[in-house]
Amino acid sequence: MVSSISLLGATGSIGMQTLDAVRNCLPDVRVAALSGFSNMEALAPLVDEFKPEMVWVPDGEATEKLKEVSKFAFESEILTGDEGLILCAAESNAEIVVNALVGRAGLAPTIAAINSGKNIALANKETLVTAGELVMSLAHEKKVRITPIDSEHSAIWQCLQGSDWDDIEKIILTASGGPFRGLSREEVANATARDALKHPNWDMGAKITIDSATLMNKGLELIEAMWLFNQPLENIEILVHPQSIIHSMVQFTDGSVIAQMGLPDMRLPILYALSAPDRVETGFPRVDFLKCGNLTFEPPNTEKFPCLALARQAARTGGTLPAVMNFINEWAVGQFLQGKIRFYDISEIIAEAFGIYKVKKVAALSDICEAEGWAAEFIKGR
Amino acid sequence: MVSSISLLGATGSIGMQTLDAVRNCLPDVRVAALSGFSNMEALAPLVDEFKPEMVWVPDGEATEKLKEVSKFAFESEILTGDEGLILCAAESNAEIVVNALVGRAGLAPTIAAINSGKNIALANKETLVTAGELVMSLAHEKKVRITPIDSEHSAIWQCLQGSDWDDIEKIILTASGGPFRGLSREEVANATARDALKHPNWDMGAKITIDSATLMNKGLELIEAMWLFNQPLENIEILVHPQSIIHSMVQFTDGSVIAQMGLPDMRLPILYALSAPDRVETGFPRVDFLKCGNLTFEPPNTEKFPCLALARQAARTGGTLPAVMNFINEWAVGQFLQGKIRFYDISEIIAEAFGIYKVKKVAALSDICEAEGWAAEFIKGR
Repeated sequence: MVSSISLLGATGSIGMQTLDAVRNCLPDVRVAALSGFSNMEALAPLVDEFKPEMVWVPDGEATEKLKEVSKFAFESEILTGDEGLILCAAESNAEIVVNALVGRAGLAPTIAAINSGKNIALANKETLVTAGELVMSLAHEKKVRITPIDSEHSAIWQCLQGSDWDDIEKIILTASGGPFRGLSREEVANATARDALKHPNWDMGAKITIDSATLMNKGLELIEAMWLFNQPLENIEILVHPQSIIHSMVQFTDGSVIAQMGLPDMRLPILYALSAPDRVETGFPRVDFLKCGNLTFEPPNTEKFPCLALARQAARTGGTLPAVMNFINEWAVGQFLQGKIRFYDISEIIAEAFGIYKVKKVAALSDICEAEGWAAEFIKGR
Repeated sequence: MVSSISLLGATGSIGMQTLDAVRNCLPDVRVAALSGFSNMEALAPLVDEFKPEMVWVPDGEATEKLKEVSKFAFESEILTGDEGLILCAAESNAEIVVNALVGRAGLAPTIAAINSGKNIALANKETLVTAGELVMSLAHEKKVRITPIDSEHSAIWQCLQGSDWDDIEKIILTASGGPFRGLSREEVANATARDALKHPNWDMGAKITIDSATLMNKGLELIEAMWLFNQPLENIEILVHPQSIIHSMVQFTDGSVIAQMGLPDMRLPILYALSAPDRVETGFPRVDFLKCGNLTFEPPNTEKFPCLALARQAARTGGTLPAVMNFINEWAVGQFLQGKIRFYDISEIIAEAFGIYKVKKVAALSDICEAEGWAAEFIKGR
């Protein structure tokens, strides 16, 4: 069982649920560091409650804001800037770093934390999407454990307990299908960010909710699963399961399938990432199989959701392509959230980039930075 | 991985499927002993194919019959009678005894095999129903592993891989609901053995198919699960799942549920019982979640299937009551198969016995024999 954590992205959806889980179920776990990006009003009470030794905020202005609201902030070491975030990940006294940052910003702190030998509980899927090979081989070298917080990957992790990974025949990654599953292609084409933010099962942040509507989220998870579980692309199948009761499954070479189920509650995978293979007793609501309705399955529709096919293409091609896709997707989702582009513009812009980008191998982090530099140029002025 | 087996009950449904699984998937496993009860024509080719050192048949007459048909039988040591069966279980060179005997006959050979330090792959659920406490404590003492062959218990066993049993909150034992699930109580009352033998999902022997129709089978499995997984009765829930895709589930203290799924094919749990925790590569058909239909759940109906409530009562009471129930049920099922009694007579006769029998503690095997003696008297002349 973990004794102390450093939480990056404390005021986001996963961050808040991590602290809720710690508060309710792991009272002995010490929060050694907290980081918050934009919401100092939300960060301040967390600093006062958990009294971390280190706090990260983006800059001096945010530091001032935090100190206006938080009493304890004066006693914490307050770090700022990119380097400060890396210190917060690598230099706190925490045993495990919970990376709940959103988007590409999660990569550098993860690498710093691995380099300093800290285990990682990873909610930031972009880390593995953009730099899966580098991160996993570094983790292997430093004997660091990366446990997934994503509910699907946590499910797979749970299904694999006590099993030999050589016995995996196939991973079945389940997908709710997102908020637009039942709509026609035309209705999807006209959908707004507001429509997308009504996710049927999961309460998540804005970026991931849009990714869930385009199914890019499932595509990112596909790439993440390849790296986390060391599986070739063809061993990972995506299955739409609208009830989100089965969180994913593993089929073994004898034909047996192990599935993990539960209510959609992110606190469960968060706790499991901190405690695995032990389980933490919780009073959270249980699945009632007599009330959850029928469990149904359907194939994903890549015509209606081309982002999933694009992600598969990026996974198959490998190299720097997933990083380019991820960068452009992150920007496009932002544009869509602001109402500046339409739903299918997201996949069309990515497809356009795929058409002209020359993929390179990833030998070092600089290759990813270079690829992201290309993507930044690509979107400039759009 | 196991290297050699002794198979008791070779010509029954589980026995034949065990040999089919060995033939197809475990070609290096040696069959050291085979036993067959009534069908020498079926046993002879198995003896010739697997060339066991020991063969058990009931008596001299069966020995003669076997030798008429089998060429290899002359080279095997042929054993007969109750003592011969015990030798076959305990004294062969096999590493593991597959107990696929039907009914109460399975108990004594299991105990003999445990006493001689052999691991057990157990399909004979009556062993644990009648003498669970004795058998499990003996297995513990002799450091013998008992792996379940029943598909539900195999599922639970698989769900528990890599987990601490202290983290079990609840075992969810799934039930197909049997062939009479959709009928009214009146229709069930008039059902014949022939109706019952049309089981929707599983291809099984006659005794277990009738038990499946009365839901006594699920009741026996409930008691078996209590002993195998060391759980109190209230931790085991029965859930009707007519598609038989989910073979059972375990809910842990954090609220997470792990389920094992597969097509209804007994060869899978048989192989797992022999190889666990390793998996044996098979070419058996896989579950197709896009074709298996919706997965549904409903509560068991103990008004329509009173045997399940009787089994729960026996489990709660403990002592010699499960043995008495099992004995009378075995006899009653035989009567029903012969058309001598009607469907609800099975549960009524058991309930009548429960009303007058004085339950005793089980301190030794003799207590069970005595209880069965009482049950034999009870049914005499009916």
